[in-house]
Amino acid sequence: MKYIHSSKNPQVKQWKKLHTKKERETTKTFLVEGFHLVEEALKVDDTVMEIIVSEEVEIPPRINYGSIPVTTVNKEVLKELAETENTQGIFAVCKQPHQEFFADRKSYLLLDAVQDPGNLGTIIRTADAAGIDAVIVGNGSVDIYNSKVLRSAQGSHFHLPIIRGDLSEWIQKLKESNVPIYGTALENGTIYTKVKPSTSFALMVGNEGNGIQPELLKQTDQNLYIPILGQSESLNVAVAAGILLYYFKNI
Amino acid sequence: MKYIHSSKNPQVKQWKKLHTKKERETTKTFLVEGFHLVEEALKVDDTVMEIIVSEEVEIPPRINYGSIPVTTVNKEVLKELAETENTQGIFAVCKQPHQEFFADRKSYLLLDAVQDPGNLGTIIRTADAAGIDAVIVGNGSVDIYNSKVLRSAQGSHFHLPIIRGDLSEWIQKLKESNVPIYGTALENGTIYTKVKPSTSFALMVGNEGNGIQPELLKQTDQNLYIPILGQSESLNVAVAAGILLYYFKNI
Repeated sequence: MKYIHSSKNPQVKQWKKLHTKKERETTKTFLVEGFHLVEEALKVDDTVMEIIVSEEVEIPPRINYGSIPVTTVNKEVLKELAETENTQGIFAVCKQPHQEFFADRKSYLLLDAVQDPGNLGTIIRTADAAGIDAVIVGNGSVDIYNSKVLRSAQGSHFHLPIIRGDLSEWIQKLKESNVPIYGTALENGTIYTKVKPSTSFALMVGNEGNGIQPELLKQTDQNLYIPILGQSESLNVAVAAGILLYYFKNI
Repeated sequence: MKYIHSSKNPQVKQWKKLHTKKERETTKTFLVEGFHLVEEALKVDDTVMEIIVSEEVEIPPRINYGSIPVTTVNKEVLKELAETENTQGIFAVCKQPHQEFFADRKSYLLLDAVQDPGNLGTIIRTADAAGIDAVIVGNGSVDIYNSKVLRSAQGSHFHLPIIRGDLSEWIQKLKESNVPIYGTALENGTIYTKVKPSTSFALMVGNEGNGIQPELLKQTDQNLYIPILGQSESLNVAVAAGILLYYFKNI
């Protein structure tokens, strides 16, 4: 077991770089923090590359890290790595899963320019709960491996494919696979409960302020809306996604 | 129009105190920030007590503040008052609405110890969207006039009654009014879609980590759950509230 006790150690600088999107993209890796995320990562084969743990933390026996290298660090290094206020003192460097282009699944959630990391994480967690087969994250969205996205998603990144892609291309592919595509729009849409739930579907939700781009709305099969029964102007995008996904799942 | 250009002015100190729950409770007032919230507050009679505006901001003509006193402040004062990173430079001191104990409405949302301000605000916004008649916020929840709650709720505080109260007492009162009360629990519940939506109902959701206290779950008519179809452990509480409220509203 390695021990690092200086924040000037080049290895620490390398880990810290993973707080940036650029480095995550270059290295095709990302950093997770906290027991729950590390445990969820370890459940997926060939994902965790190394574990970093505070010298004040003991890894409980339930965490089976096999032959994955573990580095112990002191408080000084911990402070550099932690992105939460009360860090649990455990981190894992993970490989980004290989993103293959496929359209052979049943249910999809497409996201157009979701910018708030808490919203994106909550949407990913909701899609996982609803048993969606893949989440496609379009351009203009916050990075899917941003630490706040990872925390809000509570491990769902390790449960279903989260794919960055061009939504127009995806809509094309899904149409070729005969998957009906539903957009969401505040105006000129159909009330969602007028559509019959189907096993195979793709639902698209959009940006917090502007919704889905008009160019994408034009490419869907149908656009839906959730009626506002009170006086608020709209629903939070994660809440809207939850209402629609569970409606489509027709439990 | 008054002009204050020093953060040491006693009036500024008084406003700043409204960042604390204690002062809000003592004075029965609260502070909102940003154009949208100030405008929503102004729509409610006898609510806005005064407006504070940056000397760099011009109040647009659409904002009709009548005879409400307006104080202009400089950058130094603005910095003291702002709780957002990019402040819009406008604030309103508002009266807390009088909280009467009533149980003569149709639909209620009860919240047991919701602690994250973003979640509480999003739940209030969702209840507003779903046309719920009142939100009852139980003990152990974050303060309903916390600035982050106000921001996440996007003005819904001015649209429907948000009442702090003892949930046991409320359950009792609702039972006397023959309102069916549904709790939410991950275990030993009924799948929500097995319950027939009704016009009159009270739904209760609970704490982010622990759900609803067992003592309260015992007092409900029925406890419901939303099936997890994938691998996530649970849904975000605001998302769960949205799914259930829109199910009950039976659009």
